[in-house]
Amino acid sequence: MKQDELFALLRRRGYLWPSAEIYGGVQGLYDYGPLGAELKRRIEESWRAWFVGLSEDYYWIDPAEIVPEAVVRASGHLENFTDPEVTCGQCHRAFRADTVLESSRPEGVDGLGATQIGELLAAAKARCPNCGSTDLSVPRPFNMMFPLTMGVGDGERAYLRPETAQSSYLAFARMWEVGRKALPLGIAVVGRAYRNEIAPRQVLFRMRAFTQAELQIFFDPASFPVPLASVADLALPVVRAARRESGDDHVVRTTVASLVADGGIPEFYAYHLAHTYRFFRDVLGVPGDRIRLWEKSDTERAFYNRIQFDVEVDLPSLGGFKEIGAVHYRGDYDLGRHAAGSKKDLTVAKPDGTGRLLPHVLELTFGPDRALWMLADVGLAVEGERTVWKLPGHLAPATVGVFPLIRKAHAAFAQSLARQLVLDGIRVDLDTAGTIGKRYARADEAGTPYCVTVDGTTVDPASAEPGTVTLRERDSKTQRRVRADELGPILRGVQQPPRPEPVPVSPTAPESG
Amino acid sequence: MKQDELFALLRRRGYLWPSAEIYGGVQGLYDYGPLGAELKRRIEESWRAWFVGLSEDYYWIDPAEIVPEAVVRASGHLENFTDPEVTCGQCHRAFRADTVLESSRPEGVDGLGATQIGELLAAAKARCPNCGSTDLSVPRPFNMMFPLTMGVGDGERAYLRPETAQSSYLAFARMWEVGRKALPLGIAVVGRAYRNEIAPRQVLFRMRAFTQAELQIFFDPASFPVPLASVADLALPVVRAARRESGDDHVVRTTVASLVADGGIPEFYAYHLAHTYRFFRDVLGVPGDRIRLWEKSDTERAFYNRIQFDVEVDLPSLGGFKEIGAVHYRGDYDLGRHAAGSKKDLTVAKPDGTGRLLPHVLELTFGPDRALWMLADVGLAVEGERTVWKLPGHLAPATVGVFPLIRKAHAAFAQSLARQLVLDGIRVDLDTAGTIGKRYARADEAGTPYCVTVDGTTVDPASAEPGTVTLRERDSKTQRRVRADELGPILRGVQQPPRPEPVPVSPTAPESG
Repeated sequence: MKQDELFALLRRRGYLWPSAEIYGGVQGLYDYGPLGAELKRRIEESWRAWFVGLSEDYYWIDPAEIVPEAVVRASGHLENFTDPEVTCGQCHRAFRADTVLESSRPEGVDGLGATQIGELLAAAKARCPNCGSTDLSVPRPFNMMFPLTMGVGDGERAYLRPETAQSSYLAFARMWEVGRKALPLGIAVVGRAYRNEIAPRQVLFRMRAFTQAELQIFFDPASFPVPLASVADLALPVVRAARRESGDDHVVRTTVASLVADGGIPEFYAYHLAHTYRFFRDVLGVPGDRIRLWEKSDTERAFYNRIQFDVEVDLPSLGGFKEIGAVHYRGDYDLGRHAAGSKKDLTVAKPDGTGRLLPHVLELTFGPDRALWMLADVGLAVEGERTVWKLPGHLAPATVGVFPLIRKAHAAFAQSLARQLVLDGIRVDLDTAGTIGKRYARADEAGTPYCVTVDGTTVDPASAEPGTVTLRERDSKTQRRVRADELGPILRGVQQPPRPEPVPVSPTAPESG
Repeated sequence: MKQDELFALLRRRGYLWPSAEIYGGVQGLYDYGPLGAELKRRIEESWRAWFVGLSEDYYWIDPAEIVPEAVVRASGHLENFTDPEVTCGQCHRAFRADTVLESSRPEGVDGLGATQIGELLAAAKARCPNCGSTDLSVPRPFNMMFPLTMGVGDGERAYLRPETAQSSYLAFARMWEVGRKALPLGIAVVGRAYRNEIAPRQVLFRMRAFTQAELQIFFDPASFPVPLASVADLALPVVRAARRESGDDHVVRTTVASLVADGGIPEFYAYHLAHTYRFFRDVLGVPGDRIRLWEKSDTERAFYNRIQFDVEVDLPSLGGFKEIGAVHYRGDYDLGRHAAGSKKDLTVAKPDGTGRLLPHVLELTFGPDRALWMLADVGLAVEGERTVWKLPGHLAPATVGVFPLIRKAHAAFAQSLARQLVLDGIRVDLDTAGTIGKRYARADEAGTPYCVTVDGTTVDPASAEPGTVTLRERDSKTQRRVRADELGPILRGVQQPPRPEPVPVSPTAPESG
């Protein structure tokens, strides 16, 4: 499906729609309906369980989304978090200069500054995307943050945070204080970030309010031990920056061990990159051949990033590979900036007593909104008469649909079964309305892995199989008869997400109270 | 504990702290640390499970927090969502006029307009709370919304939503369209709301960014059937407005049946008020005698509210009863305003074919941040040497602490047990650091209902009881020996929240596809 078709389907079925739709919608803002909200929540939960589950020393916190101006001045966002903007002298509409340039520049616009973009636009005699005029202004920097005034009068200047990462940096000192005072220390945030995009587009891919799931791991670069052996043989679909620059942008499957031994990638980075790949493949269920780990070159990545691989997934609905996540080795840039900005000492004592250290940061970043679209692109299929969303069982908003065949005769049993399953921890959608065919159709579209039908045989003690129900599997449409009291264990298994292997507890790890 | 003591404890233990603390904090903004974030999430989940679980026709959605100006113009917030502000002519600080007046007016300031407040302040020769000057300005309305500009240049004016309710009203038309097109239809939102408080105070009780959990139920006032019998005999601790006005503000325990038969409260309202009370008592575990349902009089409640009871809980840390939730019968005010504002027809066809109807709204509103503070006030106790948080098991961030007695000898077994419990759906905190006493102390403060210790007896196949562990109960501190493989069922029971009784499926409900 193309972008418009997929969005129309998601909107028609109540997964999501433009925010304030009765007022004509708002560019770059979307509301999630019941199925979309539940799916997005499950994506977020699975991200948290997977990444925070990587180590006993990784935590998640829930900070405020508003930050005072001093924070974004220190982080550099006040000065640098800009897009180049051009305005049309004829129709007075504004556009992102790089987007205007992109259409006439197949080699891309990554890494170009505003001045270069301006020169290239002029050289190309670029036209206004709206009215076609060539009367475009020179690019000017446009800050993408939303400013706020807190309190009365001139008040205090603050901003909606442009990325959740800043909240983790702000929390580091307190988390160190209340924790076991050892590195590595991981601080995850799942929450809203806000960007005043000049031109929101591609639905969930460039929004003005969106969710980020980010884990910031603070560590000592001299010592960040990871259990690399557990992923050493995993082949990662990488595209190295050096190969790309020599003209070859094909995926090369490279084991984690070889990435470290031959590829110059530190163990701690390779380990977390491997688990990021596994998250997409094993947890989100994306076929491995639709994923690539795209390394950014020196000129493409932000200057403070020492190593960056983007996780890109091939999405036909958006015309090709799109970034859904990334792993950034940010060095000590972030704590250094905030130490300077806050005039607080953010160094910590080295465990070996040889002095103090400003921790480095490894950032794992992920976009749950984009991931929801990705799951639709990967799993939502029109198969003849039916539309079916082949979601991994643990992500499905409901694990099982429970249907009384005839409302009057079977609803009481179905309701009691549904309640028992809920008490067993199963996500249940009790659906009593319409023909069984219509109910199967709704469940298929919602990605519900199993449906259970309660019928005459179930409720008649004199039947051949009293207490049994029909269990129908979503993808194969096969049906079988099972005892209602067997459903709990079967469905609990379907709900279980993959989890990372436990890291052996080191008997020599520091003990503290 | 007093407010300052309780906040100091919560901060020291990493439950929550002022946002951007290293920059000196921000008034009215707080960050939740690992335990606070998990507890808040569990409060939100329990609210959703309980209230959305009341009916098959209640749903939750996840809308954007930014609304265009037309929305808050229609809702009345642009004009009326103001606090009266006075500024001091000497020290130039600004204050909420009603707060300044409150200190010299024991009968309260509810329902007073800005003009009245100004007259009373002048008559009382009120002084600036900061410098003591009597040079206070007349009260001026101060709009409490945060405005934003979306897009470049003058852009489009928008606002951070002042309440989540507006998002449900905006979604009604779409939810009707994608649903089964019948009333009642409930739309719940759990998300951030933002208010530019002049004077944030009482920590989580008057914040500038906070979470609301609100269920808007759209219904036909001529027909909103509820299974009242299930709660008819429940005695509610009510304080009726009429009694209060005659000088008696004591709680009168009144059954739901009597509230309907003798008290003039409609069945649909009494039913949902009863479940709101049950949520506080049975789900959040607040002792019934600390809860009161405080009816607002005609002059106290907003003009569009036809019936309003606030749920108030006695919190010694804040000096008495505080509002944590409420039930508002809002009539057809909200959809009427948005129909006018958006020029969309928001009426729906009556089921009996006698024309069209603008649905009425019953609003159930709840503050998860305030509830977290409430749980601390109610359940956090210093008992001799230990601090223990007597949280209901289903709300506790971890259900069980798993402790290897000696790290070297017992960690492997403990880790494997922890993993098995996680796969069983149990929330586990594996803690390997420090003495067992310190680990018990941490678990007690975190409200963890059970702790399990793995020791020599557990891991030694030749011991008297191999495979058994010590299970210690938080509140009684009693310990008993149980087989490790018995833990799953025991702890799953502890995690189960109370749920509302199922509503019988009506065999005559409309069927639709």
